[in-house]
Amino acid sequence: MSLTAIVGGTVIDGTGATPINDAVILLAGERVRSVTPRDGTAVPESAKVINAAGQFVIPGLMDANVHLSSALPDTVLEYEGRYEELVAEAAQIALRSGVTTVFDTWGHLESLAAVRDRIRSGDLIGSRIFIAGNIIGFDGPLSPDFYSPNSFLGPRTVKRINAQWEQGVGQELIWLPADEVQKRVRDYIERAGIDFVKYAACAHTTPLLTFSEHLQRAIVEAAHNAGLTVQAHTLSVESLRMEIAAGADILQHGNLTRTPIPDELLTAILKEELPVAALIQTRRYLEWVHDRGPEPMRLAFGPAQDENDCRLIDAGAKLLLTTDGAVLGTAKRNHPAIAPYVKDAPDPPYELGESHFRWLVAVTERGMRPMDALVAATRNVAEAYGLGAELGTIESGKRADLVILEEDPLVDVHNYRRIVSVIKDGAIVPRDAIPSRRILSADSAA
Amino acid sequence: MSLTAIVGGTVIDGTGATPINDAVILLAGERVRSVTPRDGTAVPESAKVINAAGQFVIPGLMDANVHLSSALPDTVLEYEGRYEELVAEAAQIALRSGVTTVFDTWGHLESLAAVRDRIRSGDLIGSRIFIAGNIIGFDGPLSPDFYSPNSFLGPRTVKRINAQWEQGVGQELIWLPADEVQKRVRDYIERAGIDFVKYAACAHTTPLLTFSEHLQRAIVEAAHNAGLTVQAHTLSVESLRMEIAAGADILQHGNLTRTPIPDELLTAILKEELPVAALIQTRRYLEWVHDRGPEPMRLAFGPAQDENDCRLIDAGAKLLLTTDGAVLGTAKRNHPAIAPYVKDAPDPPYELGESHFRWLVAVTERGMRPMDALVAATRNVAEAYGLGAELGTIESGKRADLVILEEDPLVDVHNYRRIVSVIKDGAIVPRDAIPSRRILSADSAA
Amino acid sequence: MSLTAIVGGTVIDGTGATPINDAVILLAGERVRSVTPRDGTAVPESAKVINAAGQFVIPGLMDANVHLSSALPDTVLEYEGRYEELVAEAAQIALRSGVTTVFDTWGHLESLAAVRDRIRSGDLIGSRIFIAGNIIGFDGPLSPDFYSPNSFLGPRTVKRINAQWEQGVGQELIWLPADEVQKRVRDYIERAGIDFVKYAACAHTTPLLTFSEHLQRAIVEAAHNAGLTVQAHTLSVESLRMEIAAGADILQHGNLTRTPIPDELLTAILKEELPVAALIQTRRYLEWVHDRGPEPMRLAFGPAQDENDCRLIDAGAKLLLTTDGAVLGTAKRNHPAIAPYVKDAPDPPYELGESHFRWLVAVTERGMRPMDALVAATRNVAEAYGLGAELGTIESGKRADLVILEEDPLVDVHNYRRIVSVIKDGAIVPRDAIPSRRILSADSAA
Amino acid sequence: MSLTAIVGGTVIDGTGATPINDAVILLAGERVRSVTPRDGTAVPESAKVINAAGQFVIPGLMDANVHLSSALPDTVLEYEGRYEELVAEAAQIALRSGVTTVFDTWGHLESLAAVRDRIRSGDLIGSRIFIAGNIIGFDGPLSPDFYSPNSFLGPRTVKRINAQWEQGVGQELIWLPADEVQKRVRDYIERAGIDFVKYAACAHTTPLLTFSEHLQRAIVEAAHNAGLTVQAHTLSVESLRMEIAAGADILQHGNLTRTPIPDELLTAILKEELPVAALIQTRRYLEWVHDRGPEPMRLAFGPAQDENDCRLIDAGAKLLLTTDGAVLGTAKRNHPAIAPYVKDAPDPPYELGESHFRWLVAVTERGMRPMDALVAATRNVAEAYGLGAELGTIESGKRADLVILEEDPLVDVHNYRRIVSVIKDGAIVPRDAIPSRRILSADSAA
Repeated sequence: MSLTAIVGGTVIDGTGATPINDAVILLAGERVRSVTPRDGTAVPESAKVINAAGQFVIPGLMDANVHLSSALPDTVLEYEGRYEELVAEAAQIALRSGVTTVFDTWGHLESLAAVRDRIRSGDLIGSRIFIAGNIIGFDGPLSPDFYSPNSFLGPRTVKRINAQWEQGVGQELIWLPADEVQKRVRDYIERAGIDFVKYAACAHTTPLLTFSEHLQRAIVEAAHNAGLTVQAHTLSVESLRMEIAAGADILQHGNLTRTPIPDELLTAILKEELPVAALIQTRRYLEWVHDRGPEPMRLAFGPAQDENDCRLIDAGAKLLLTTDGAVLGTAKRNHPAIAPYVKDAPDPPYELGESHFRWLVAVTERGMRPMDALVAATRNVAEAYGLGAELGTIESGKRADLVILEEDPLVDVHNYRRIVSVIKDGAIVPRDAIPSRRILSADSAA
Repeated sequence: MSLTAIVGGTVIDGTGATPINDAVILLAGERVRSVTPRDGTAVPESAKVINAAGQFVIPGLMDANVHLSSALPDTVLEYEGRYEELVAEAAQIALRSGVTTVFDTWGHLESLAAVRDRIRSGDLIGSRIFIAGNIIGFDGPLSPDFYSPNSFLGPRTVKRINAQWEQGVGQELIWLPADEVQKRVRDYIERAGIDFVKYAACAHTTPLLTFSEHLQRAIVEAAHNAGLTVQAHTLSVESLRMEIAAGADILQHGNLTRTPIPDELLTAILKEELPVAALIQTRRYLEWVHDRGPEPMRLAFGPAQDENDCRLIDAGAKLLLTTDGAVLGTAKRNHPAIAPYVKDAPDPPYELGESHFRWLVAVTERGMRPMDALVAATRNVAEAYGLGAELGTIESGKRADLVILEEDPLVDVHNYRRIVSVIKDGAIVPRDAIPSRRILSADSAA
Repeated sequence: MSLTAIVGGTVIDGTGATPINDAVILLAGERVRSVTPRDGTAVPESAKVINAAGQFVIPGLMDANVHLSSALPDTVLEYEGRYEELVAEAAQIALRSGVTTVFDTWGHLESLAAVRDRIRSGDLIGSRIFIAGNIIGFDGPLSPDFYSPNSFLGPRTVKRINAQWEQGVGQELIWLPADEVQKRVRDYIERAGIDFVKYAACAHTTPLLTFSEHLQRAIVEAAHNAGLTVQAHTLSVESLRMEIAAGADILQHGNLTRTPIPDELLTAILKEELPVAALIQTRRYLEWVHDRGPEPMRLAFGPAQDENDCRLIDAGAKLLLTTDGAVLGTAKRNHPAIAPYVKDAPDPPYELGESHFRWLVAVTERGMRPMDALVAATRNVAEAYGLGAELGTIESGKRADLVILEEDPLVDVHNYRRIVSVIKDGAIVPRDAIPSRRILSADSAA
Repeated sequence: MSLTAIVGGTVIDGTGATPINDAVILLAGERVRSVTPRDGTAVPESAKVINAAGQFVIPGLMDANVHLSSALPDTVLEYEGRYEELVAEAAQIALRSGVTTVFDTWGHLESLAAVRDRIRSGDLIGSRIFIAGNIIGFDGPLSPDFYSPNSFLGPRTVKRINAQWEQGVGQELIWLPADEVQKRVRDYIERAGIDFVKYAACAHTTPLLTFSEHLQRAIVEAAHNAGLTVQAHTLSVESLRMEIAAGADILQHGNLTRTPIPDELLTAILKEELPVAALIQTRRYLEWVHDRGPEPMRLAFGPAQDENDCRLIDAGAKLLLTTDGAVLGTAKRNHPAIAPYVKDAPDPPYELGESHFRWLVAVTERGMRPMDALVAATRNVAEAYGLGAELGTIESGKRADLVILEEDPLVDVHNYRRIVSVIKDGAIVPRDAIPSRRILSADSAA
């Protein structure tokens, strides 16, 4: 088993503990063997030594919400049959920027599963992927839930594409009684090879609810029976309340209520230590939205969200780094359905490879302590997804996912961008060589 | 007080009792004084005598669900400021066809209230009107809930029109917490002068839910505290279940679930004797829908509805005549959003002045006993709306709303169309003179 | 006959002649009797004297292209039956800002004719109006030519509204052979009481042509036989060429070709002294368009237009002030079809009451001499429309339309805004009292 | 050189001459060597003999207007990069049904040229193809000219796809002056390897004109200078007149004027013997259109077309068989933009492999003599396209394209469907083996 020693750096291990200066991290194969002060540590002769003197070592970052497969109509239609290439590109863009683990909360099941497995087996370099497949209750990308094709496309095309996303657990479930819904979800879990469950507690962009609390309980039960964590898409206070009542494990963008989270709900969140995967934007993006952004953004990212964010941070809620990040190439940036939200905007949201840096800035701007921000971007995510034993911190026995930074991220949050190297499963990531093939990101990189 | 004696007819009084042949109905002013066999009844000399020998007298029909004010964009825009004229026309079309009382379950509050009051005061002839105003949770007619104006109209126009329908209780309520929702509903009830409450339990044409059960309870409580009955718009099993759990008094088109009503829900409906205002179409309309109708209609009026209808009727559920009827003139019949559903169709639904006759045919086709059908069209509606002491039957002390038919409606359901005369509040309705002004119905009458 | 003497001002009479300092303009009734130096002029005792010492007197401005009746769907639908009120408001907004004569080149015939006649008869204060009615070949406002109602409105509404604009000379004429087209145009002229003819040589916003040259000749002939001037809507080089070949009298926005006007065409325009009603924007509006304006504007107002404008001005073409001006109130400014073009823009085009000032700035920015600019805004317009004997200059015998300015407009073009008073037909316009009723302009004035 | 003798059949040679009974057609290689009565003809021993006794031999049919490459958005997007497969399928569907030569008047240049060349070289079996590439003046399939993608697709996708059709000669040419247009067309001809030129004289479905007569002349001149025939897309009388004036060689669907072709134009067509490729539908399709068809079809195929058709046939105009045929598979048949025109319709138009049979029925229904119909489907097409020396008749020296029928097509026009065998370039077509790969036609064949 190969040994690697990272020597001399300051280790901020993701547990929230005081950083260890001038430390030695010994990696054995894919895992961390030990973290010790250099003084008194004998580095094995066989170990490959990485000199990290003056540098800072943090756990690989974890993003609780990304979308590796593109759902833009253009891409969906152009790359049909080749989606794996897009997922691979995205997984490498994430990894390159220090995100060693991502949770894909909606996407094209088959290609995501394939890329996940290829990365897991070592066949492909990329961020470690966990997938939900479809958001139960939503129809596919070419539907009113996302991009309505109106009468531009015929029913065969629409059905063929959407079925690949819906996987039999689309909007039609909302018409069904609870036992039938539960059966459909159970079948889906068994068949799909997913890692966690996500369902829609409300519509994609409106406050209309999808599943009643009664049905939500049936879904959560099916997931828990299968040993999976559950989360829901929510936008409103009531959908958040229903999700919590139904027993969800992670509150995905639970901060995005249009009116402030009521006290009793906030209290419940804090008391039960429910992880909140909070989408938070930088101040300057919000200012742009306020001044020049399109109306839907002005409503979604209004004062209630800001109030929620500040209260959650003040109260010490268990936040998770979450970005909704996807590859934002030229085609997407100029698509009429997307352009108003990102074009000319500073720090646009939802940009894989970038938005996690912006999230760390944004929480800092709202008063989160630097150490808490790091924990939110590492350990909290791992624990929320039930992976705390394997991921999220630099501790003996865990997977060796690390990022080495030039400067201290606790001193200046922008230092997260100053990546020296990324190590995943004990191996140094060839950052300059990935994405090995630029497709959607081709132009933006040029 | 003026006396009127209707002499010699067979009285089917709406209570379900055996008809009384050769009877005398004595009306005193606006009310029924007595119903007795002619033998042994002395008709007061001062009474005006109506000879009904060989004819059949039934209570004035009651429609549990109509829309007197048009919501078609064309009409809404053309007649702004003159909606009262449209409501008056509709109320007269209903009355002319034997419907002496209607429950308007969604419409333009101000004009409906005005016409209701003018009719009540005797200033205008027309069906007796009870109103709900807005369906709480829905936006106005020029919105995605009904007819989306896309970018054809500007925000001022859209807002100005919609506000007249929304009355502060539109879709925005869905974002709010329960106490705020309840407050808004309470204010609306106090301000609006409505007669009963209707809210949206699900979207207008999709299964998406609007209010959580939590919020539904808050709305029902507000209504009940104000002494009003409550009903909800539902389309799916879950929305029906939630409405019942929340305590609704009438299940408006509760038969329209896309999958059959589950047994336990049906049992609850029967046990609690919950009134079901069931939209039921004639067989030949359903055949047309199946063969040539547009897809939404094929889905909405599919096998589940038929199964529900038959089971409800078989089990003796408390059904109410309900038509969703509105004036269906040439403009509406040819509107691109409406034409596919009604044009060239036999027995098209939703046609004020016609659809109640079709409903009586439709329930008979599904095996309802003739006497039960009459009760469903009279007493059941009155009782469901808490008006059993005043309306719904020909009994001493009740309002004198009667329809005299040429032939026995219990022998042939088509005999409901053979109206000799309509009496409302003790006075003969001048059927040939109404609608006194044809507007939307002008062409169809020509 | 009442006499008025304007004494002491500098008269810039619109002929291009050297201004006369310290002059006396004597008005007799509705006409100018004389313009003379004060020295040696005896002002009749009965004359009302207006002291214009230190001020500048110019002819009333003339706008070769306005639209007094709103065509916005919102307004068209809301004000049906009351369009005269809107036309009256617009005519007063124009007059108030110094424009004493306007040429309405597309609008609602009946209301325009009515307001025109009321103003002519002295019954109403307002700009003098000459009208074209429909642009022959275009369908009404609720059509693909302008605002397509898609399936939002039904065919009856669309037809009813559009017919009021189309007047039997809409797009259907394009299908017809020449003799039939000519007959239809002749009938229209006879019936409609219009003052000049405008037809479409190309589509409203695309380069597609409407009438072939063959048909254009038939239209022009019909107009000339009726003694009317003709102009066409053109956007492209070819449509401009065809219009000229067909014999049009005024080139309406003839400067708006997407590629530069070819030399031989420019030569023909100059040689025949064809009046060009050139839509010209200020530099800062064009910069805004270039930086942030919507694509259609960037294409329409691109380098070719600028090149055309400069060449036309350099070559001394006979330009006419033309603005396409309409009342730009809050509703229009925020309409989704309009907002991208005017909102947040400096010097937005098409704004009645404002855009003529901007036009004078814009031509000056492109090097037109101040005196030529004034002539383009007065005499040229009158002559182009065949009204040179009556309007356009301050000369003996002509109608007494004058604007008195505080400062010299030849020194600073912004001085056109510094209006002291407007005189039309010899009478002082009560500028503070108009528009006597603000409707569409209500909010913008607030 | 291989010899083949077709012996004993009745030869209707496409020249209009009296059929030759009991004839011998001797084919040498790809060409016809002789056509002689059997009596007195010595069939060479080396010749392969085909016994056609009792059968009827006609020239291979020629369709003056087909579209082998699909332009439906679904197909365009799904098969990008594989269009050749679609063109090959279509060329084989045509050939299988007796059409040995087709003229593709609009399509995807590159794939059409490739398939044309493969067929020409003997590498692929299929109808002989001649191509126009783009209709000069039209934008690509994903544009307002055909299927507008509105905001469903982004600009990159739309541009990428459309550019493959537009080839630099799209709608933008309409803005340009004549010399520039001519240059662009010349470049296109030189670069594209097309066989004939087609331009738009009017819009795709509206009467708006595209190129002025001035520009049309420039285009025609460029084509003629390159030795190519020219045709235009026309829909209205004026566009037809302009096309003729500009010098077009074939009047493509010249019969589709909305008002009857004026006498002088008809006279010119007859006098100059201009070939009219007339789209003509069967009576029962027109009845369906009249009763139940969508409005655009009712207008396009109205009384004027029928009058034109009858007059052209009566007057003996030089008609060409033309179908606008494309593969009409299940996807297309159910596409919302297509379904209203073909679904449930008898004899739907535009169906490759079928519509030529319907055309022959349709002209017969309108009184065309059987022999003239055959000539219209063979010799006339060849001559109109300048290919009379090679194709269109069974005459010595011409290409050996033949169809052998079971029964006499001159006796009953439905006999064209009773194909025994198809011979192209002297070789028997393996009709049962084509299309060798069913793609778009897969379902309809199942």
